[in-house]
Amino acid sequence: MTQPSDKALVPFVSVDNMMRLIHYVGIEDMMRDLADYIEADFKRWELFDKTPRVASHSDVGVIELMPTSDGEAYGFKYVNGHPKNTSEGLQTVTAFGLLADVYTGYPVLLTEMTILTALRTAATSAMVAKHLAPKSADTMAMIGNGAQSEFQTLAMKAIIGLKAVRLYDKDPAATEKCAQNLAGLGVDVTICKTPEEAIEGAQILTTCTADKQYATILTDNMVGSGVHINAIGGDCPGKTELAPGILNRSDVFVEYPPQTRVEGEIQQMPEDFAVTELWEVISGQKPGRTGDRQITLFDSVGFAIEDFSALRYIRDRIKGTDYFIDLDMLADPDDPRDLFGMVQRAKA
Amino acid sequence: MTQPSDKALVPFVSVDNMMRLIHYVGIEDMMRDLADYIEADFKRWELFDKTPRVASHSDVGVIELMPTSDGEAYGFKYVNGHPKNTSEGLQTVTAFGLLADVYTGYPVLLTEMTILTALRTAATSAMVAKHLAPKSADTMAMIGNGAQSEFQTLAMKAIIGLKAVRLYDKDPAATEKCAQNLAGLGVDVTICKTPEEAIEGAQILTTCTADKQYATILTDNMVGSGVHINAIGGDCPGKTELAPGILNRSDVFVEYPPQTRVEGEIQQMPEDFAVTELWEVISGQKPGRTGDRQITLFDSVGFAIEDFSALRYIRDRIKGTDYFIDLDMLADPDDPRDLFGMVQRAKA
Repeated sequence: MTQPSDKALVPFVSVDNMMRLIHYVGIEDMMRDLADYIEADFKRWELFDKTPRVASHSDVGVIELMPTSDGEAYGFKYVNGHPKNTSEGLQTVTAFGLLADVYTGYPVLLTEMTILTALRTAATSAMVAKHLAPKSADTMAMIGNGAQSEFQTLAMKAIIGLKAVRLYDKDPAATEKCAQNLAGLGVDVTICKTPEEAIEGAQILTTCTADKQYATILTDNMVGSGVHINAIGGDCPGKTELAPGILNRSDVFVEYPPQTRVEGEIQQMPEDFAVTELWEVISGQKPGRTGDRQITLFDSVGFAIEDFSALRYIRDRIKGTDYFIDLDMLADPDDPRDLFGMVQRAKA
Repeated sequence: MTQPSDKALVPFVSVDNMMRLIHYVGIEDMMRDLADYIEADFKRWELFDKTPRVASHSDVGVIELMPTSDGEAYGFKYVNGHPKNTSEGLQTVTAFGLLADVYTGYPVLLTEMTILTALRTAATSAMVAKHLAPKSADTMAMIGNGAQSEFQTLAMKAIIGLKAVRLYDKDPAATEKCAQNLAGLGVDVTICKTPEEAIEGAQILTTCTADKQYATILTDNMVGSGVHINAIGGDCPGKTELAPGILNRSDVFVEYPPQTRVEGEIQQMPEDFAVTELWEVISGQKPGRTGDRQITLFDSVGFAIEDFSALRYIRDRIKGTDYFIDLDMLADPDDPRDLFGMVQRAKA
């Protein structure tokens, strides 16, 4: 049988290999690297092809494709969202991604992205906090202690030097799990019984709860001046975490307004509610934090360019390692017009 | 290391395994089976989610995602189109596809689709010819003898009992390749020196040339009454093969008018040019061929539902075979909230 040429082979990073790669690089180093790749792509934001995500909705969930391109590489992520899955022992969200070469159209990387998305989400939050949080910020309230909570905490440690995290979840078992996972990783962990207790002394308030509803995780009177709010959980239509009063008192920073106005905390606000695009801050065109008493708010929903940055990083980082296998995914006949002949010759 | 659960594994059909599967099933049986799956999906056309394809254009080509869903399964194809690739020893088109379960959002199949697309394109043509060509049709003119030509010929043999094919290509080497590939496969092959010679005595005229331009492969005076035209090559903006006069004398059948009016032969015609949707014919709601002297024309561009049918077929057909491998593509922690714990435990 004819062997496929190198060009027909696509490097594939399995879940197992992604976990090995994380431990090989070190999870904090990897989130620092990811933050650097994401920051670099925010700096050249304008040259990206920002296609809206393509969603297929059903009664029980959604399947989305999130493509983007910088003109040299093309990437997309497949991601589902099925809240009812948890009760059936399945993941709410699974994801994989692909990177291709724009010049040839050939895929150059296929990778799991469930774990990688958790890393890039946390790395994005911490990179944004580096630009927006008070310079002395070293304590974070982590409200919602689900799958993203440990990643958020470690990314903040790795990227802005977080020293302490104050955990709260309405389910004490989630907090216990988070505290156990963080034990010994170099962050001082405090278990709190109320959200009010969690935000005591914290300069960064991270909300990351899973309720798919309009919830009020932070009420207006809980939020004092001089903090940075990292709002992760309000990320789809009908799901928010913050009281509108907080949004009115904050300077709100977003990834991509057309998407955030539909999916983010600001879906509660009028269509012309003022926001600043993060790429403008990161590229130095607009100010980030301008004063000690300012409340900055990152209304995070997750954008395709962050996945693209993560795919670029994995493509670069696996070179020279054995944390991938080659998949024979692309037919590659010697004579492009002779696909049939290739198939027939395989019979032998 | 924790092993992934069965649900985290996605069956993958490589190019090599696709070729093995084709020979295991038999290429003619496989095209018959594919035609049955495609026909079944045309019969339930109305329930499909018909998202337009999502294209990312560059100076040298295009990368497209073609998603669709029948409410139970969700499928998409990744396909590129880079005409300049051939001169660099690469494929103009490569493709792969994915099928997922709508209820869980979990992928259930990943497969090469370069070869599979060639099969489904030919199976679609032959299934359509079964509905539209004269009942006695047994001879086809095959104008354009590139990668699709042998598949078209064998599908017509398998599905409507084609006995003879008359080959013409402006490049005699392409015709020679096609004739050699078809030798001994049960179809009488005639090599022709002109398109006029190729269509002599043929009841089916298939055009499948690769020029990306407005070309006139068939002129108006070449096409007599009582034939079926299977127009494959006019399949993107700026690329057509037929003189407009032929379209005016034909009853034109299309897959999905919003796409065909942009990509097909009818891009040459006014926006209100009358066409019949194939699903209406196949489901018995509208007539196909109504008379002996009628010219029927299938303006084929390739639609996502045909890829979906092909993905469904491969998912069903590989069961119980070893023509796939399982990919560890989806992270599957025991506790969905404990993704971090799963990653940490992998360190051991």
